[in-house]
Amino acid sequence: MGTLLSGIKAPNDIKNLADSQLPELCEEIREQIINTVADNGGHLASNLGVVELTVALHRVFTLPEDSIVWDVGHQSYAHKLLTGRAEEFSTLRCEGGLSGFPSREESDCDPFTTGHSSASISSALGLSVAKSLAGDPGHVIAVIGDGALTGGLAYEGLNNAGRLNRNLIVILNDNAMSISRNVGSMARYLSYVRAKPGYLNAKDSIEAALCRLPKIGEAMASGVRRVKNVIKKNIFNTTIFQDMGFNYYGPFDGHDLRTLISVLTMAREIDKPVLIHIRTYKGRGYKYAENDPSMYHGLSAFDREKGAGDAGAQGFSGAFGETMCALAVENDRLCAVTAAMETGTGLTSFKEKFRNRFFDVGIAEEHAVTFCAGLARGGMIPVFAVYSTFLQRAYDQLIHDGALQHLKIILAIDRAGIVGEDGQTHQGIFDAAFLHTVPGIHVYAPTYYDELSDNLSDCVEGDAHLYAVRYPRGKALFRPEGYKLSGKPFGVYGAVESHTAIVTYGRLFSFAYEAMLALAKTGVKCKLVKLNRIIPLDPGVVSALKDCKTVVFFEESIRTGGVAENLGSMLSEAGFAGRYVMRCIEEGFVKHAPMFRTLEHLGLDKDGMIRAVHEALQPRLRGISEKGMWT
Amino acid sequence: MGTLLSGIKAPNDIKNLADSQLPELCEEIREQIINTVADNGGHLASNLGVVELTVALHRVFTLPEDSIVWDVGHQSYAHKLLTGRAEEFSTLRCEGGLSGFPSREESDCDPFTTGHSSASISSALGLSVAKSLAGDPGHVIAVIGDGALTGGLAYEGLNNAGRLNRNLIVILNDNAMSISRNVGSMARYLSYVRAKPGYLNAKDSIEAALCRLPKIGEAMASGVRRVKNVIKKNIFNTTIFQDMGFNYYGPFDGHDLRTLISVLTMAREIDKPVLIHIRTYKGRGYKYAENDPSMYHGLSAFDREKGAGDAGAQGFSGAFGETMCALAVENDRLCAVTAAMETGTGLTSFKEKFRNRFFDVGIAEEHAVTFCAGLARGGMIPVFAVYSTFLQRAYDQLIHDGALQHLKIILAIDRAGIVGEDGQTHQGIFDAAFLHTVPGIHVYAPTYYDELSDNLSDCVEGDAHLYAVRYPRGKALFRPEGYKLSGKPFGVYGAVESHTAIVTYGRLFSFAYEAMLALAKTGVKCKLVKLNRIIPLDPGVVSALKDCKTVVFFEESIRTGGVAENLGSMLSEAGFAGRYVMRCIEEGFVKHAPMFRTLEHLGLDKDGMIRAVHEALQPRLRGISEKGMWT
Repeated sequence: MGTLLSGIKAPNDIKNLADSQLPELCEEIREQIINTVADNGGHLASNLGVVELTVALHRVFTLPEDSIVWDVGHQSYAHKLLTGRAEEFSTLRCEGGLSGFPSREESDCDPFTTGHSSASISSALGLSVAKSLAGDPGHVIAVIGDGALTGGLAYEGLNNAGRLNRNLIVILNDNAMSISRNVGSMARYLSYVRAKPGYLNAKDSIEAALCRLPKIGEAMASGVRRVKNVIKKNIFNTTIFQDMGFNYYGPFDGHDLRTLISVLTMAREIDKPVLIHIRTYKGRGYKYAENDPSMYHGLSAFDREKGAGDAGAQGFSGAFGETMCALAVENDRLCAVTAAMETGTGLTSFKEKFRNRFFDVGIAEEHAVTFCAGLARGGMIPVFAVYSTFLQRAYDQLIHDGALQHLKIILAIDRAGIVGEDGQTHQGIFDAAFLHTVPGIHVYAPTYYDELSDNLSDCVEGDAHLYAVRYPRGKALFRPEGYKLSGKPFGVYGAVESHTAIVTYGRLFSFAYEAMLALAKTGVKCKLVKLNRIIPLDPGVVSALKDCKTVVFFEESIRTGGVAENLGSMLSEAGFAGRYVMRCIEEGFVKHAPMFRTLEHLGLDKDGMIRAVHEALQPRLRGISEKGMWT
Repeated sequence: MGTLLSGIKAPNDIKNLADSQLPELCEEIREQIINTVADNGGHLASNLGVVELTVALHRVFTLPEDSIVWDVGHQSYAHKLLTGRAEEFSTLRCEGGLSGFPSREESDCDPFTTGHSSASISSALGLSVAKSLAGDPGHVIAVIGDGALTGGLAYEGLNNAGRLNRNLIVILNDNAMSISRNVGSMARYLSYVRAKPGYLNAKDSIEAALCRLPKIGEAMASGVRRVKNVIKKNIFNTTIFQDMGFNYYGPFDGHDLRTLISVLTMAREIDKPVLIHIRTYKGRGYKYAENDPSMYHGLSAFDREKGAGDAGAQGFSGAFGETMCALAVENDRLCAVTAAMETGTGLTSFKEKFRNRFFDVGIAEEHAVTFCAGLARGGMIPVFAVYSTFLQRAYDQLIHDGALQHLKIILAIDRAGIVGEDGQTHQGIFDAAFLHTVPGIHVYAPTYYDELSDNLSDCVEGDAHLYAVRYPRGKALFRPEGYKLSGKPFGVYGAVESHTAIVTYGRLFSFAYEAMLALAKTGVKCKLVKLNRIIPLDPGVVSALKDCKTVVFFEESIRTGGVAENLGSMLSEAGFAGRYVMRCIEEGFVKHAPMFRTLEHLGLDKDGMIRAVHEALQPRLRGISEKGMWT
């Protein structure tokens, strides 16, 4: 670690440095970030883009009395380094180490634990209002990217903030990107604001033009003033942000420390909502990331000298993208919709081949679903490819604009289940539960790529209602020899006559199959029920289990409201009298760690399953002696 | 019905009238709307405000080839009258009659079945894009109020639409209101746009000012032109909507038929996104509604001559409002937040008494929750009062900005359960299910006003996590003599030793208690388990039921993911071997009808419960002979 950085042990220690040392500090921070991300993986480009901003913020404001709310939070590394977490920084995204996002547990300099986009203005506004009510003089600063500004929540926050008239400082970190290149009219608008002379400059240029008029006599002075006033009145609202009630300043060079510090110092004194528009470059200071900030948004460990190799879409995302391309050739009504996740969801090739049927709507999952409803009403077959955790945003739209319309909308849910290092804000462990409450939806959980293709193809051919195909991050796991796609809502494997059953779906089938084989070797024969369609459950599943004495359900989802609970209630209804064990995710938030380590901790790997089946069988033996109940 | 209106039997029949007959048609439409709403209840002010707009739209466009998407849809009455539904209009909001909102089932002139706010631009855009892909020349028009424009989804739609560059026509129906007076900086901005000279006028006034300069010689001509160009360039983007990529026209008088028709005719020919800003008056043409459009937003049947009496907040909403006021006196950290539902949720008195702790954030439920998180982080205790159906919008915020933060945020969920005449888009039948999936939340379901107060008070005193208190529309029902608040998660009533149990919560407890009394008279003794806290269920509930032979759960919620399913899975886990029957709402969407009629249809009234218990007990008798299973 650099010498300046290693001297910063606590929040506000940065204030001990001389101004002249700050550029060097920025370099040290960049070094630290590049090295750590090269080792551990993480978000690189976004963090390199805000080094100067972070340094300036920490020079001007005092934490935690003042509060900085980083939107999303994938740009908070420098902030972590400056708030007493430099020593631990090498543990970034490691099991038990620092989170890759702001974390209240780590530091009271992180007012919120975050990871989803567009929320910062709203939460910062609430905090600012609370401080005012409590007579607390602290300032609140929200830092939001231009990408996150496409989310409706950000707009709702601006709308409320402009009116409440608080000393809230919003910093628009404009890098002309969200994760991919930013889209939508707000993006175009910002590029217009960047390109044109700023508000003050515009006034200047008009005045200059007036001055270039041939010299006019004293008699004209008042006339000129009148013109100036009319002009001033009419161009005062030059930006949307001023229209929304903010004092707007910018655009400024977001890598110019001196400017940033003086602008922030000025903003601190204004008792009104202020929006500071800065221009930054993602990946600044690391040439590979500067050249391809999209690829260096979030990535795995890589060789610092050589840069990261472009893996392209692999695993389930890749299989999804390929299937989409194949289906789109056959069916000219098939459309793909993404909310700023073109690359992540594997749609790059689709976009290139079927440009007029590809729609990136920005970070706007709500709109994506409602837009799909419109496409479907017009006869198209929209497929919305979305990460599980972000689909949470569109819950009402799925009900009101989706299910209620009896239209065919297909959700391709990527990153379903445990995602690993991104941690608690990104785990895809709610969709199986909340989709169960969406009327009429059919949800498939493929275990293998060909199963994904098969499911997706069935959805495209199927009746007019909602569909979802959900699949995990990464690659398919163990496939039993001779495994064939059944095309049925569920399949039964192993000792089909056994009174002991394992039930599961999605990738856990691989572990469960291995567990079943291992159990058989130790004399415990089980049948394995694989749910292909998890919502609605086929009544045949209940028939297949009703007479079992022990049923153990493994689910890579929260228990509350999930598939295991649903099956449990169906078993109760059916008069099931055996032992029912649910092994799901009990805690709503699962911290960052490698994906398979997490599954191991949760008892959802092969060994965990073997243990669970053994445990489930114990009470049956005990039960015989105690109550004669589990015979 | 008026003679002109009765001649309009089908869509586009209006085109047979002479221009000169249109004002009379408008009067007939107003008459019909006022009379029908006076008889049946419904939305009055919003519908009276768009009569001329609707007539103009139907004159200019051809339905269903062209499509009109009414945002929310509580202003679609005139549209219904002009699309072949005039004959049935007297059945509005009645059981089996016309819906009070657009309904695809009623007419293919309604592209979507709607009722929630801010979705129209997104769905209209999707439809427009689909038409373009299919080579279909039809136009798509979205009509959205200024209130609905505070919703983030509307902004996401604008952002996408401005970029896709389709011939989409958005009509901003600006009546300076949402349901209550509109709030937020967008509202202020619109009032600014309304007040200032429009874009063209602004240019004119500058030019006029220049002309007032003392006469200048020929030599100055080019200088003046240069000035004009600079001015033009800098004030071209005079409205947010132009900034967002729309051609903006307005504001126009939304009650001037001639203007509306010519503007719409012009807009039809522009192959770009167009936003037409019209100024209307809610309640236009009915003096009571003009004077108090808020009160005449949605209302019950009333006397046309005398107007509706202002009932004020009654029932559960009233009890909530009173409790809030009482708690706020004792606790100066208590804040109230509403998303444009101040009156409906009973907060008017709170607002008057505690103005600085009252926040109406506009129609922005997502922001409301995230804003609450900020308030809570700053030490306040925010209570977000919201209708059940609209809380669906904030699902992700409840997880990401609420539960994850371990902050105390209290949801006061009004209109939970069946709401009656507003129908399928407004039933509060999802919250019990989706809240079950939100980590760590505690949800209470009071049956009586004092129970509501008690629950709310407990939440204010409780630990730092999410809470919800959910209560139905309207008034409390039957209360058993001597009923006392238990303050416990559940209570057991009636024949506590019986092996037959009824389980329920919320207002259904009243029916269940009556059913239990009636059953006892016929010799069927039951115990009645009342769940006070429905999430999480107390393990004691399982203990109380485990040895029962028959358990019947009545729930005013969708079955999928609801409390009954949760209990069913817990019973399975506990080795319950009796019969478990869930009587919940099986269909996700329940149509409009009087509230108690709907409960009757669903079998969730007293008689339905009696029947269900008898039915549940039948198989037990059968079971003995068949399998010896239910002994």
